[in-house]
Amino acid sequence: MTLDLSLLPDGGLHWLIGSGEHAGIVLSSRIRLARNLAGFAFPTRAREGERLRIVHQVRATAAKVPSLRDAAFVRVDECTPLERRLLHERHLVSRELAGLERPGADAPTGAGVLVTGDVGVMVNEEDHLRLQVFRSGFDIPGALRQAEQLDREMAAALPFAAHPEFGFLTACPTNTGTGLRASVLIHLPGLVLTQEIGKVLQGLQHMGLTYRGLYGEGSDVLGNLFQISNQTTLGRSEEDLSDQLVRVVRRVIEREEEARGVLSRDAGYIIEDKLWRAYGTLRHARNLPAEEAMNLLSGLRLAVGLNLLSGLSVYTLNKLLIFSQSAHLSHAAGRVLTDGEANLARARYVRQILANEARLPG
Amino acid sequence: MTLDLSLLPDGGLHWLIGSGEHAGIVLSSRIRLARNLAGFAFPTRAREGERLRIVHQVRATAAKVPSLRDAAFVRVDECTPLERRLLHERHLVSRELAGLERPGADAPTGAGVLVTGDVGVMVNEEDHLRLQVFRSGFDIPGALRQAEQLDREMAAALPFAAHPEFGFLTACPTNTGTGLRASVLIHLPGLVLTQEIGKVLQGLQHMGLTYRGLYGEGSDVLGNLFQISNQTTLGRSEEDLSDQLVRVVRRVIEREEEARGVLSRDAGYIIEDKLWRAYGTLRHARNLPAEEAMNLLSGLRLAVGLNLLSGLSVYTLNKLLIFSQSAHLSHAAGRVLTDGEANLARARYVRQILANEARLPG
Repeated sequence: MTLDLSLLPDGGLHWLIGSGEHAGIVLSSRIRLARNLAGFAFPTRAREGERLRIVHQVRATAAKVPSLRDAAFVRVDECTPLERRLLHERHLVSRELAGLERPGADAPTGAGVLVTGDVGVMVNEEDHLRLQVFRSGFDIPGALRQAEQLDREMAAALPFAAHPEFGFLTACPTNTGTGLRASVLIHLPGLVLTQEIGKVLQGLQHMGLTYRGLYGEGSDVLGNLFQISNQTTLGRSEEDLSDQLVRVVRRVIEREEEARGVLSRDAGYIIEDKLWRAYGTLRHARNLPAEEAMNLLSGLRLAVGLNLLSGLSVYTLNKLLIFSQSAHLSHAAGRVLTDGEANLARARYVRQILANEARLPG
Repeated sequence: MTLDLSLLPDGGLHWLIGSGEHAGIVLSSRIRLARNLAGFAFPTRAREGERLRIVHQVRATAAKVPSLRDAAFVRVDECTPLERRLLHERHLVSRELAGLERPGADAPTGAGVLVTGDVGVMVNEEDHLRLQVFRSGFDIPGALRQAEQLDREMAAALPFAAHPEFGFLTACPTNTGTGLRASVLIHLPGLVLTQEIGKVLQGLQHMGLTYRGLYGEGSDVLGNLFQISNQTTLGRSEEDLSDQLVRVVRRVIEREEEARGVLSRDAGYIIEDKLWRAYGTLRHARNLPAEEAMNLLSGLRLAVGLNLLSGLSVYTLNKLLIFSQSAHLSHAAGRVLTDGEANLARARYVRQILANEARLPG
């Protein structure tokens, strides 16, 4: 199949809009619920035929689930490698489900994803179903409400595997119980620049939270973007877990804002210089490797946050982050670009957006 | 005395105009003639009173020398430290004559300079007189004609120390004979980037030439700017010496142009990226240390040479080089700036010039 992105409502990128609370710092809030169908082996143990029965059953059911009425269904295992990278870059599928862990690998048989608005449902990932809701900005309660609605609707149509005492059963015991992971994608350049970040991240772990890089488990922290999420799911309610995350993240946002205040006060012109140089490079470079772009875009986001630069909306900043990734650049070019070609295309894309949208002070 | 730069014809910067041959590569051509007055000890051995008699005699004579009729006369030893740095940054006086070799030092007693158009005459430097002619671009013959004319006129008014066999006598024996140093200030980024520069500089030495940095003897090479000059003066005629320099420099220019061709052909986008990044930093940085500015301005000059950037004349490039120096920035600010303040002022000055004059491609 050829993936027609225009068939995905909002291209699966509704959260880019940058409309939520603290959207300048918290890019997105996500609730993920792990669910499995009773009577089937977990995907890692299931045979191919069983995995295919699962994906067909989920697809057939989706039509009856109100939250998924308009969802596009994508058979990830039938996508080209470029299409799978594209879905992964949009955070719609995990690295594993996209079969991107080794170069040249295929996606697992029966891998699929349902996408609509803020909602995505991965099929045959580590669990049979991974229900995900993305919200723009800092909106864990909104994401939780929407995810619980989706969960109730799907549970009415599909028999979920559950244990009366432990709760929902999952392939990995760490997810058993609520199967919930609540997370925010948060931009913390102030804490990184003031070297406070180490203490803050340590503090998270004492509160039962953890952090990862932009692309989830095992990925590096790039561009000062952290995914903060709960670590445990067993023995506590969904509301408890999400309230805990909200409280801690609210405190992290305050610490980040304090750090930005300190930077502006004590190192104003050093920071201004650093951010303007980042802008100058993004605005004029002809060759822009992905990792450098992430770091410079972090500077750009901070420059907007500090009101050094105007005209760039949070939406544009989010768009730059997603569309400057290699698979997106290849998609725009209509062919698979080499890394070198992608670096040139990335520089051109970023340059054009900034030429059109950024306004410089007098 | 307070130095009124407006009294200096062209501010002593006539050569900035960028009009000569190969002006994009050769910034300026200079002829210097070392002369001493008969009957006085060399400046390094002369007592203060003797040095003062020399400077008074030269000043009195200047009025009778046609080439110096409109010259401004500056007593360097009566200038403030900032004024002395300013004269040095304009290449009108040497580091020694400006008393800049140690912080807090004074200029030597009787230090002076006459300035008009392309001509400068230092008084009480290593020799009693250092006659200098600067020409824009690559024009050693023009500079030599003008220097010889000045020399004849001054010799008619002042008794020069000479020996019938050796020629003109000078404080340092290496200058004895013609007292001539012919030099060009040349920009060789292509040879530096292709790493051919080592071979070229070695070749110079085999031809009896030598090289120095932007500020002459003992100064570092900054911004890929080299002063190439003759090493010996004894036993050869002025024309021989200058013809030799012209021949070799012509070959160096060819090598530089070849190197630029190789860069464009084999590393086009790498070079473009490097130069555009230099432009982006110059255009947007808020804090610009002097040495970094020199290197980035070298990139800018090359970008103009390769037609990547338009709207910037050679005059503007030369002006940026001179007026972004610390003493010039202090002069413009009307007070002595600290190094930190000068870095901010430098960034502001360069930014404004580029915002006004550079034209970016579509």
